[in-house]
Amino acid sequence: MARTDIARRVYNHTWKLDPIVRSLLDTDFYKLLMLQMIWGVYPKVDATFHVINRAKHIRLADEIDIGALREQLDHARTLRFSKKEMIWLAGNTFYGRKQIFMPEFLAWLEDFQLPEYEISVRDGQFELEFHGPWTHTTMWEIPALAIINELRSRVALREYGPFALDVLYARAKAKMWEKTERLRKLPNIKLSDFGTRRRHSFLWQRWCVEALKEGIGDNFTGTSNVLLAMDTDLEAVGTNAHELPMVLAALAESDQELIQAPYKVLEDWQRYYGGNLLIVLPDAFGTASFLKHAPGWLAEWTGFRPDSAPPIEGGERIIRWWQEHGKDPREKMLIFSDGLDVDTIEETYRHFEGRVRMAFGWGTNLTNDFEGCAPVPTSRLHAISLVCKVSEANGRPAVKLSDNPAKATGDEREIERYIRVFGQEARLEKPVKV
Amino acid sequence: MARTDIARRVYNHTWKLDPIVRSLLDTDFYKLLMLQMIWGVYPKVDATFHVINRAKHIRLADEIDIGALREQLDHARTLRFSKKEMIWLAGNTFYGRKQIFMPEFLAWLEDFQLPEYEISVRDGQFELEFHGPWTHTTMWEIPALAIINELRSRVALREYGPFALDVLYARAKAKMWEKTERLRKLPNIKLSDFGTRRRHSFLWQRWCVEALKEGIGDNFTGTSNVLLAMDTDLEAVGTNAHELPMVLAALAESDQELIQAPYKVLEDWQRYYGGNLLIVLPDAFGTASFLKHAPGWLAEWTGFRPDSAPPIEGGERIIRWWQEHGKDPREKMLIFSDGLDVDTIEETYRHFEGRVRMAFGWGTNLTNDFEGCAPVPTSRLHAISLVCKVSEANGRPAVKLSDNPAKATGDEREIERYIRVFGQEARLEKPVKV
Repeated sequence: MARTDIARRVYNHTWKLDPIVRSLLDTDFYKLLMLQMIWGVYPKVDATFHVINRAKHIRLADEIDIGALREQLDHARTLRFSKKEMIWLAGNTFYGRKQIFMPEFLAWLEDFQLPEYEISVRDGQFELEFHGPWTHTTMWEIPALAIINELRSRVALREYGPFALDVLYARAKAKMWEKTERLRKLPNIKLSDFGTRRRHSFLWQRWCVEALKEGIGDNFTGTSNVLLAMDTDLEAVGTNAHELPMVLAALAESDQELIQAPYKVLEDWQRYYGGNLLIVLPDAFGTASFLKHAPGWLAEWTGFRPDSAPPIEGGERIIRWWQEHGKDPREKMLIFSDGLDVDTIEETYRHFEGRVRMAFGWGTNLTNDFEGCAPVPTSRLHAISLVCKVSEANGRPAVKLSDNPAKATGDEREIERYIRVFGQEARLEKPVKV
Repeated sequence: MARTDIARRVYNHTWKLDPIVRSLLDTDFYKLLMLQMIWGVYPKVDATFHVINRAKHIRLADEIDIGALREQLDHARTLRFSKKEMIWLAGNTFYGRKQIFMPEFLAWLEDFQLPEYEISVRDGQFELEFHGPWTHTTMWEIPALAIINELRSRVALREYGPFALDVLYARAKAKMWEKTERLRKLPNIKLSDFGTRRRHSFLWQRWCVEALKEGIGDNFTGTSNVLLAMDTDLEAVGTNAHELPMVLAALAESDQELIQAPYKVLEDWQRYYGGNLLIVLPDAFGTASFLKHAPGWLAEWTGFRPDSAPPIEGGERIIRWWQEHGKDPREKMLIFSDGLDVDTIEETYRHFEGRVRMAFGWGTNLTNDFEGCAPVPTSRLHAISLVCKVSEANGRPAVKLSDNPAKATGDEREIERYIRVFGQEARLEKPVKV
């Protein structure tokens, strides 16, 4: 006998909006860490963020209805941190430290609201921009990306009947579980979820996170998603991102200040955080240049996150740098987080095993891998390389070079100037898949 | 087309236990307030609690399988306060006050586990007792009652087919919503949920609490259930209970100490709590006697909770006492909590409106009223008067007289002695329904 909960069914079929983002904690932990520092040190800086679809051949604005996108963005702007969320932020231990967020910062956060957005369509792409104080625009990055990605999934899913949907998720779950079984064979792996921004959907991310928790146990060390961390008693993980050196570089008054900008921001960081939060992200303007000019005190930091160089080559370069500074790499940490999947995780793990501490931040291929799962083949479930980058700070253009020229963002002439200042040693073009 | 989530269905049909109590916060808030004081002032006192079914004609041990009861009690003993729960207890505001729980107390609570239990069957009733330190046995009251009551509901529900179950809950929801509509007509009512111990089930209590929240809005001022308060951003409410004067009375060395015991415990209370937590529960050994010997400083307290006298008569007596002590009752509060339903709430509200501040703690008839809802009539869904009372403190018998002799508990000879000491002015027998 088949029964239906009539009230629930009617509710499900009559609601006005199924919000994609339902909590301001549904964001990456590093946004909160960076926000506290921006609030403390750069409260007057304006920063513009904008969303960039690197997969130009995907005409997002043709796939996704702009009205539906506006509704989701508007809904996110109605959110505030709830009482329970504020209590948890104040009381939880992050990276082994209590009260990582200062009471004054939390008091300010209590009234936080996502700022306004500007949206238009050009050449089949959304031009989605956030203007205003850095303390506010920075917080759009993750919800904006998660909203666009999930809206795109929903469009694709509308094509399927109920059995096809059932099979799609059945295959995706089986695929995810196979990955889990392979990871279980790496006995000392430390792996966490970095997949919020690119996820297929919130519920799918939660499924993957809980599957990993059951599948590899304590080797699953946390999630960058603060809401999931709270709800599942996992550690919230993450440190800092490119927007910090990018804004500081944009604000530099001379080439000399420009070349110092990536270190200045790490000095700020060090005043706010310690221990395992002292992770260097070296590739904003090329890792080779960063290491060449890096001050000695950076060798005291816990580790590096080589984010756009090939993992083995990038890791080896950093190990050499530690050795040149008289450090034992076995006491240091490398965090890998760029376009990982089980193959690259296994290869990197086996290459560096015993030589350095490692952690893997697994993103898109954890939370949005439906390759080969659709009963009727479609390209619309392939994750795309969508990012939300700072493009201006106090009216000046912001630039990222990256170790991979395909990941560079910013005004062309400024990019040329940055290359002149930082050089382009060891930068290597490779296709950006995710 | 009817679809079934096969994995979920198999999971639902193969699990070993459907736990009734899944969190140590699934208890009444007053237990935590009392526990902190017991931990602070009476850490060495032993107290025995035992479960009493006042409805002797219901042979509970014939209805409920003792093995199933053991499984549920054993499961409750596996629980610990989770990290998120500890953070919330430390960080939440209760009755407008931050850090109502001291850090030392919370550190102690982190390792808390429900102590062992003893169970046997006599005359168709369970003899369920908890022996040991008061700091531990006190915490069994609510989970033990909730477990027995829900196990009894489950037995009754097993008789029904799926449509009958659907109709049962449909009627119960409609009935509950009618009550909500009547309460909405009392514009200044302050009402909260006191129904954890007697609930039909945890899920039904949650439904009722959320229905009231939607139905009467801000006039619904909270729930005594700490877990529901946390999960639904409601206020946790409750103050203290009879076990405090009962234990202090049992420990009294003389009749003179005995008559002072109810005031001594309130002196302790006052050292721990203030404001709206200063509520007197006057009826443990008869309200008339309590008021006759009450020290003047009690007139400074916020209010009284007359718990076993008829509400209007009991309230009037306390109003007279405030007037005799030169207090304006309009600045004082009466909390009504004994066997309320919408009729008595309306009557009491209208009687006292404008003369005193009022709050209603609605219990059994909120969370366990299935009268007239069962498609096949049964008495097994009627709530029964099941209590868990302290029966001994440091080996001496504990007694409660109450304003209603039908609610008296304890050794017969001790009851006689207490009546000799406290008198029995204005005690009035009325049937105990819930």
